[in-house]
Amino acid sequence: MSPFVAEIIGTAILILFGGGVVANVVLNKTKGYDSGWIVITWGWGMGVFIAVFTMGQFSGAHINPAVTVGLAVAGLFEWGLVIPYIIAQTIGGFLGAVLVWLAYKDHFEITEDGPTKLAIFSTAPEIRNYPANFLTEVIGTFILVYGILLLPEAGFIGSNGELLTTIVIEGQEVGFGLGAISALPVGLLVLGIGLALGGPTGYAINPARDLGPRIAHAILPFSNKGSSDWAYSWVPVIAPLVGAAVAAGLHLLF
Amino acid sequence: MSPFVAEIIGTAILILFGGGVVANVVLNKTKGYDSGWIVITWGWGMGVFIAVFTMGQFSGAHINPAVTVGLAVAGLFEWGLVIPYIIAQTIGGFLGAVLVWLAYKDHFEITEDGPTKLAIFSTAPEIRNYPANFLTEVIGTFILVYGILLLPEAGFIGSNGELLTTIVIEGQEVGFGLGAISALPVGLLVLGIGLALGGPTGYAINPARDLGPRIAHAILPFSNKGSSDWAYSWVPVIAPLVGAAVAAGLHLLF
Amino acid sequence: MSPFVAEIIGTAILILFGGGVVANVVLNKTKGYDSGWIVITWGWGMGVFIAVFTMGQFSGAHINPAVTVGLAVAGLFEWGLVIPYIIAQTIGGFLGAVLVWLAYKDHFEITEDGPTKLAIFSTAPEIRNYPANFLTEVIGTFILVYGILLLPEAGFIGSNGELLTTIVIEGQEVGFGLGAISALPVGLLVLGIGLALGGPTGYAINPARDLGPRIAHAILPFSNKGSSDWAYSWVPVIAPLVGAAVAAGLHLLF
Amino acid sequence: MSPFVAEIIGTAILILFGGGVVANVVLNKTKGYDSGWIVITWGWGMGVFIAVFTMGQFSGAHINPAVTVGLAVAGLFEWGLVIPYIIAQTIGGFLGAVLVWLAYKDHFEITEDGPTKLAIFSTAPEIRNYPANFLTEVIGTFILVYGILLLPEAGFIGSNGELLTTIVIEGQEVGFGLGAISALPVGLLVLGIGLALGGPTGYAINPARDLGPRIAHAILPFSNKGSSDWAYSWVPVIAPLVGAAVAAGLHLLF
Repeated sequence: MSPFVAEIIGTAILILFGGGVVANVVLNKTKGYDSGWIVITWGWGMGVFIAVFTMGQFSGAHINPAVTVGLAVAGLFEWGLVIPYIIAQTIGGFLGAVLVWLAYKDHFEITEDGPTKLAIFSTAPEIRNYPANFLTEVIGTFILVYGILLLPEAGFIGSNGELLTTIVIEGQEVGFGLGAISALPVGLLVLGIGLALGGPTGYAINPARDLGPRIAHAILPFSNKGSSDWAYSWVPVIAPLVGAAVAAGLHLLF
Repeated sequence: MSPFVAEIIGTAILILFGGGVVANVVLNKTKGYDSGWIVITWGWGMGVFIAVFTMGQFSGAHINPAVTVGLAVAGLFEWGLVIPYIIAQTIGGFLGAVLVWLAYKDHFEITEDGPTKLAIFSTAPEIRNYPANFLTEVIGTFILVYGILLLPEAGFIGSNGELLTTIVIEGQEVGFGLGAISALPVGLLVLGIGLALGGPTGYAINPARDLGPRIAHAILPFSNKGSSDWAYSWVPVIAPLVGAAVAAGLHLLF
Repeated sequence: MSPFVAEIIGTAILILFGGGVVANVVLNKTKGYDSGWIVITWGWGMGVFIAVFTMGQFSGAHINPAVTVGLAVAGLFEWGLVIPYIIAQTIGGFLGAVLVWLAYKDHFEITEDGPTKLAIFSTAPEIRNYPANFLTEVIGTFILVYGILLLPEAGFIGSNGELLTTIVIEGQEVGFGLGAISALPVGLLVLGIGLALGGPTGYAINPARDLGPRIAHAILPFSNKGSSDWAYSWVPVIAPLVGAAVAAGLHLLF
Repeated sequence: MSPFVAEIIGTAILILFGGGVVANVVLNKTKGYDSGWIVITWGWGMGVFIAVFTMGQFSGAHINPAVTVGLAVAGLFEWGLVIPYIIAQTIGGFLGAVLVWLAYKDHFEITEDGPTKLAIFSTAPEIRNYPANFLTEVIGTFILVYGILLLPEAGFIGSNGELLTTIVIEGQEVGFGLGAISALPVGLLVLGIGLALGGPTGYAINPARDLGPRIAHAILPFSNKGSSDWAYSWVPVIAPLVGAAVAAGLHLLF
């Protein structure tokens, strides 16, 4: 499987689980209706786990432009591949959101509130204040990317695998990504970020996770859709990239 | 232990935990009454974990006709054993449901609502719409089987075990299944599916998990039983097989 | 550390966590008041995890007469050590309960209901029916001991440790117990049992876990104590031993 | 990275997650508002997991003066480094609290109750009784440090890592700390302590976790701050050190 296909599938898996768990908690008449933050954060954490577990071997499972950029800034991934990876991730985010919509189609129809349905696709702050929301997303993504950059030294488990996989394209090593055995620690890292830092903005910490599904929200046909809130959309795209750059900088510093 | 006995016991274990956790949450006067979706999803996830952990070594712990069919379509399991495996799994599902009924016997008697009690045995959609319910089950099973098919490449942990065990019958290798060290990743995969995709239909994603206990529901003696809802029963049997075939097809494609 | 001291400390740790989490959920004015079944089951699961993790290396961390008896019936533990192990476990259960009382002392005083406080020490059925309660405990303990007996074949992780540790007393091998690397799978097994089978009786599945703390309940000085419910006390002592014997029998059969 | 910088960053990470999860649960208008004890305890557990995972390789991730003192009493860490480590940990605790405040800034402003906001920084007992609160913190820290001291014998996983890392400063071995592979067991240990023993006092079990953020509380500018409750502040500083000493003593005894 080519790394680009793997990034598409991996990010689609992430959104299938992450968007799916939000749908389960917020849409009317689901079995998980109103089951709370512990359900949402475990859903996203397991989405990361499964995406890395399945796709790490093919593309290093960045599944997040912030991870791709963070690795590139840290000198661990080829800059020439950054844009193709980000495009693949955004396509994957879009496709994952379509799958969530298909799985919960009737529940979309019987839920009336537009912003509730947008929350399945994209993040929105509880208190709208762009600089403050931006800072929250920077902090959340910083710790995500910093944790990932420290994986290779950590040597977690790794007896017959590698935490950082070398990604090979047409016989050439192009950089690093997450190996399958990173799936659990990185999944738990994202669980922790959701629990601790998801309160104000809903922890995008991933531009593709927010933008791809927001495009899907704009396109998909369902009733009482409401606004796609493009005014906010730049925050969960730009802030994670800044957080990733800060993480890479701190990593290079020490 | 023969693989067929192991499939019976493994699927019985799955239902003992999965049916049991639903009984604990929905039946009157239990200690876990109304304790929510996080309890239900962890209960099923741990049921998978324990069934694979204990029976993986003997039968590859398919414990699910969709897994058996998915592996066969992918060329990883002998077609001639598919029917015997499915029969064993269905028997196991039936026996597990009987054990749940025995463990919660008095609580069945003091709970009046019939559909509540059926939920312990079999799945039912929140919004009845066969094509939509079918599609939801296809998506859920697709990701289950796709994740399992990607295990061998992932090389998770695996220092003194194998993610995919070779199943041997009378000295002959007949195909693959889950080794004990797959118990945790596959258990977490099912946890994730429950959290993210269980909302509309209650995630059967396993024909034996639904049909075996439904037969038990029809046979077991308890008051206010209500309908066994045979009208819906084909969805959680056929849709998972379709999802498994799609997963195997995608796996063969790349 | 001698195996007997280790069984005392290990069972005390189990009850410190298990009794402690119940105290946190049921006593007035605690930070975890009324936080539900997911908290209780994870507390017990982590109690097992920590007890096995710390004491497995010294005594095999049976910390449960049902495990000791199950291993003996299966021919994996010397019968002559069964009584000494059980005595140590019961002492440990008593000491753990004293620690819980010390940690929550003021909260015991401001909680008025006697049965609520007894629940911290010992199990009680939601619907009192001795044969039914007995059967529920047999089923729960059966799957606990059966899962443990299947550990050695499973070969879970185990690269530089052993799932089943050989216990050595005065230079002589006396049988088997859980090694530290069994801590996670067995902790998750007990998590699953609590989620799925704890509903009717509160899952004693361990005579020492119930009897030792019940003695502590009878002795410790606190207000509004209420009955120690000795009438029920034989169920969580005898039923787990029966469940263990059934598990050992099934294991020997295959 | 120097061990002192690593202790600063590691303790900051711990508080970023631990303080952050409390902020998410108690501050007004967060997405995790009122989501309960299971969220808080998993947040702290994952904070420990991530701090040890990332910083264990550099400093042994004590991130807690009680751990540092416990190791020193047990003869496993140089006494001359105890004060520098504690200073670094306290600075880290302070910095982590500042990050939490930055991430949740607007939510601090719209929450009126002072003690609610103090709970994000420091612990406070539910029933104020200094000797009783002290004892609860001693018991909680005892089991934390005792569990850590038993890690090296346990040999958990550890195929290509070490549970206890040797800390080297200027070419000289100065003692032991947690390796990255201890991150999961120690994270689960702290999860268990929170579930079982956090009820009365909120489980400081770490002087730097309480004092550093309390200083931040006193300094940071936000409205309706209320008292920093210095009257209680000695309990979560002194009691954990006593608990650690008891654990080290028991460890030396056997």
